[in-house]
Amino acid sequence: MTGKLYGLGLGPGDPELLTLKAHRILTSVPVIAYPAPDTGSSFARQIAAPYLSFHQVEVPIIVPMRVERFPAKETYDEAAETLARHLESGLDVAVLCEGDPFFYGSFMYLFERLAGRFATEIVPGVSSMMASAAALGRPLAARNDVLSVVPGPLDDDTMRARIEAAGAVAIIKVGRHFSRIRALIRTMGLEAAAGYVERVSLAEQRVLPLAEVGEDVAPYFSMILIYKGGEGWNAGLSPRTSNGMPS
Amino acid sequence: MTGKLYGLGLGPGDPELLTLKAHRILTSVPVIAYPAPDTGSSFARQIAAPYLSFHQVEVPIIVPMRVERFPAKETYDEAAETLARHLESGLDVAVLCEGDPFFYGSFMYLFERLAGRFATEIVPGVSSMMASAAALGRPLAARNDVLSVVPGPLDDDTMRARIEAAGAVAIIKVGRHFSRIRALIRTMGLEAAAGYVERVSLAEQRVLPLAEVGEDVAPYFSMILIYKGGEGWNAGLSPRTSNGMPS
Repeated sequence: MTGKLYGLGLGPGDPELLTLKAHRILTSVPVIAYPAPDTGSSFARQIAAPYLSFHQVEVPIIVPMRVERFPAKETYDEAAETLARHLESGLDVAVLCEGDPFFYGSFMYLFERLAGRFATEIVPGVSSMMASAAALGRPLAARNDVLSVVPGPLDDDTMRARIEAAGAVAIIKVGRHFSRIRALIRTMGLEAAAGYVERVSLAEQRVLPLAEVGEDVAPYFSMILIYKGGEGWNAGLSPRTSNGMPS
Repeated sequence: MTGKLYGLGLGPGDPELLTLKAHRILTSVPVIAYPAPDTGSSFARQIAAPYLSFHQVEVPIIVPMRVERFPAKETYDEAAETLARHLESGLDVAVLCEGDPFFYGSFMYLFERLAGRFATEIVPGVSSMMASAAALGRPLAARNDVLSVVPGPLDDDTMRARIEAAGAVAIIKVGRHFSRIRALIRTMGLEAAAGYVERVSLAEQRVLPLAEVGEDVAPYFSMILIYKGGEGWNAGLSPRTSNGMPS
């Protein structure tokens, strides 16, 4: 009897945003795996840390951050074989995923290598996109809005067309593209409708109108939300809205 | 000292997909409110039911389902005043929200009436969109895909343009528009890339390729996901992938 593979969505960062289901599986599986940078600590493991036991086998999947072209085929081939050995020996394996496993997640690279061989279950998680709208105190999308999720690396023309065609926009993977994206949003006259969220739901979370961001670069874990339905980013925002920080 | 208002995301239906945070708040607030149809039971309350206590005051917000034009202003004005009285008397109030409160949710109608007057916190939840991708065993979006979320009531021309411009598409609020939407997707040659999910994460969940749906109408809680990145809907799907049903 082989083990079961779980793609475990852990939510955006606050350990209390795990689902009850993810918590149950996380605290019961004998083997956990998680993406980790070649230097520094794994964000996915950090989210799960309060719930881990020293009895669990940990398999860090070292994804070199300097590699520009993803997926790093050899890394995932090798990690899949390591996990396959645990699964073949009858152990359940949970792959820890920031946010939701299938929303722009790297879990798909393990899924496509292992799901044909082993029983697999995806446990959806709270996405940083929903958490960012909550932190901003603004609807992500409503009524018959089209919501477009636009990755930051896309070129200006593509990004402009997608923003124009949607009633609500989430720009993800902002990072080093921040300055260029903000200039584009400004040119389009949408800066007042745009909010910026960094490291959502963590203690170091920052939430502010896009126009008030001082820096020209943003961390990897940042997002810009544009909501055209309101009368500007501040319109619907209560000054008394708490920021949803872990208490 | 007035009470605090919570917009509580409960996830797509399986009570185990509540977050630990939503669970903590749900089991500790003295007052809960939830949308309810004028006949039949409230889906939001049904999700929360396993965790409710008879000590809690319940405020159903009756939203007549036959009203075509939302928001039903008077309904929300009245509900907001009821909740305001509880908040003014110092009691915390949690509004139960299916999925995520700010992802096409009706919570925004209470939020815009109350967030300026009372401390308010939104607790994000697992969206049915993420849960549907998990149930289909297919990424919702990956790499630099543009993901567009398209409400089913939009007309064919608008819908066609949004589907053409995106790498991945989630069509929500399908319901009585199902037949028309499927015909459009077929015309566009995308039927093989489309999956259908109904009542995701519940015991009566249905997950199948769009082409295999026999009916011409779909329930309100259904969704069509199109993922152009793969080689058809079945390509990435493991026959051994479990459907993530509550166990």
